[in-house]
Amino acid sequence: MKKTNSDLALLATSGIRRFNALANATPGCVKLTLGEPEFDTPAAVKEAVARALAEGQTHYPPNNGKASLLAALSSYMGEQGLAYAPEELIVTCGATEALSATLQALLDPGDEVVVPVPAFGLYETVVRAAHGEVRFLDTSSDGFAIDEDRLRAVVGERTKAIVVTSPNNPTGCVYGAASLDAVARVAAETGIYVICDDVYNRLCYAEGCERFACRHPELRDQTVVVDSFSKPWAMTGWRIGWLAAAPALKAQIEKMHQYLISSIPTFVQDAAVVALGCDVAPMRETYRRRRDLVVERLGRMGLPLTRPEGAFYAFPDVSGLGMGSEELCERLVREAGVACVPGTCFGCEGFMRLSYCVADDQLELGLDRLEGFLAAL
Amino acid sequence: MKKTNSDLALLATSGIRRFNALANATPGCVKLTLGEPEFDTPAAVKEAVARALAEGQTHYPPNNGKASLLAALSSYMGEQGLAYAPEELIVTCGATEALSATLQALLDPGDEVVVPVPAFGLYETVVRAAHGEVRFLDTSSDGFAIDEDRLRAVVGERTKAIVVTSPNNPTGCVYGAASLDAVARVAAETGIYVICDDVYNRLCYAEGCERFACRHPELRDQTVVVDSFSKPWAMTGWRIGWLAAAPALKAQIEKMHQYLISSIPTFVQDAAVVALGCDVAPMRETYRRRRDLVVERLGRMGLPLTRPEGAFYAFPDVSGLGMGSEELCERLVREAGVACVPGTCFGCEGFMRLSYCVADDQLELGLDRLEGFLAAL
Repeated sequence: MKKTNSDLALLATSGIRRFNALANATPGCVKLTLGEPEFDTPAAVKEAVARALAEGQTHYPPNNGKASLLAALSSYMGEQGLAYAPEELIVTCGATEALSATLQALLDPGDEVVVPVPAFGLYETVVRAAHGEVRFLDTSSDGFAIDEDRLRAVVGERTKAIVVTSPNNPTGCVYGAASLDAVARVAAETGIYVICDDVYNRLCYAEGCERFACRHPELRDQTVVVDSFSKPWAMTGWRIGWLAAAPALKAQIEKMHQYLISSIPTFVQDAAVVALGCDVAPMRETYRRRRDLVVERLGRMGLPLTRPEGAFYAFPDVSGLGMGSEELCERLVREAGVACVPGTCFGCEGFMRLSYCVADDQLELGLDRLEGFLAAL
Repeated sequence: MKKTNSDLALLATSGIRRFNALANATPGCVKLTLGEPEFDTPAAVKEAVARALAEGQTHYPPNNGKASLLAALSSYMGEQGLAYAPEELIVTCGATEALSATLQALLDPGDEVVVPVPAFGLYETVVRAAHGEVRFLDTSSDGFAIDEDRLRAVVGERTKAIVVTSPNNPTGCVYGAASLDAVARVAAETGIYVICDDVYNRLCYAEGCERFACRHPELRDQTVVVDSFSKPWAMTGWRIGWLAAAPALKAQIEKMHQYLISSIPTFVQDAAVVALGCDVAPMRETYRRRRDLVVERLGRMGLPLTRPEGAFYAFPDVSGLGMGSEELCERLVREAGVACVPGTCFGCEGFMRLSYCVADDQLELGLDRLEGFLAAL
């Protein structure tokens, strides 16, 4: 039999899933491993589905999305200071497909993409499966900010793009002006594309958080903004997101989008219009409160932490505990009944990711167990 | 600015969409261009969505699909003589994503895929966007059957796979035993994968239609079966399909599927379980009746036609009309108010595709107009 895609064959299954599976197999284990809100989708969004189906919305929608949703997304982005016309948007199967379609639309075999680490593992796997290469930019010694010199050192002839994730998974950090401006200067000089994974942008706890595409509109022709309904509206299981890009670039991505999935379910798009009108502030306040709790508790445990300003993750430094992060996380599950994700899953040894999108009582129980484990070391 | 994917950049938008747009812009034009049932999705399927949402089915489903749907699909395929365990299935965003994930999981840059033509345009675009190459196998002079010698002539060192579409889009033809056995012999000798695009398998009007995977189980390790809810249950706008493959091959495709879209909406999967229990015979009978009408009318018009035995298309020979198929189809829209798709959109000049998944009165009106146009030539 013939060989399959040789680059894909080298990729392993996600490490996060392995730790999740370990936690699931351990009775009573508190899972601080998840990347999805524990909340249910707002009722109004669910009702919109029944309405759309009753109206017979069961036929192919336009490939890029229904006109009603594209118009609503254009307005929504406009309110956030991002001027994109409906014709510059594509409705996608979550941020996942937006990122895949974008990266595949950009890369020729052997092309490189800069990924600041720690990072969500998807970027690397999508690039490598598409026969590209990843240039990692370590941010762990810069407080998870992007240092311009280090960035210049990894951008080469074959570099096509950089992924900018802010608020960040797994650190919860938000890039400041210095990081964004460093990316902008390098992008302007080298012509690389800037892929903004903005899926956590509605979960910012600090004032004055800036988004790359807002701050650097002069680079809009080479910028892609990726966003999703999953996190702000607790719609992970709905698989709907979108991307925005200037016409020439969008024209390439829309072809790839069409080849990958054709379009996303028509009645889900009607529900998404309703979601855009739902207030996310109460959910954000809940996460902010939990963030404060996590920061306070980790501080008391003596774990160094770069304060997270967004998303729903903390990424404490565990390098002083005398073991690798994988051993630590395995022992935490087996000996303390609490599951986190080792930093190695994000390309960054010496740290671990703790997610606080779990119910308050579970979060407190998990932190108690972590504290007990550390005290007994 | 850097260049984008150089192979993707060469691909144009679908020709079918161009003719659809022309038809839409022509008031009163009868559209025999569509590839989707005009029926509405069965009510029971729609009701299942509301039930799932009320139960809080709004969170991430497993990447390959929910256990309930995988079990139901395994049984469903078993009833059709295809033995696949739930662990050998992946629920996809329609057949489109199933084909994309499969082809991307197989191809290294420069690898080739054999596509018998005429063919649905997606195969070529997916392969080329993934930096592969397409080897076309002309079937138009063999009554749309696969000739073994011609097939051998296009399979080379770099060939990784062949796409087998039966019933076929655009011809409506079903491959007989000779075609399937020819593919099997060549696949067994060369080790190429056989990708069966079986989305029209429930719309077969002849007795004893065979499917490749049923007839050649000895090749199951190198066979992928792609199927979809779109056509049999009028669920095009739901974007749900699936694929089946033996474990080693499925392990590669599932990684690509995870990178492309992660998973498909959780409540759509619950509805799909209900769809599998809905009888498709009444819909098929409607299409069979229309097929008979189309064959009879085209015969009276004097257009040579290989009798379609499935799907909802006829692909008459229009080479004797003194003009190319594109000119013919443009003139049909502008002068007669009826839209078909030129054979060139399927890589086959001298023919045109006429779809009969439109309401009976529209179909008759469209055929009347076609007849009038031909009579006046």
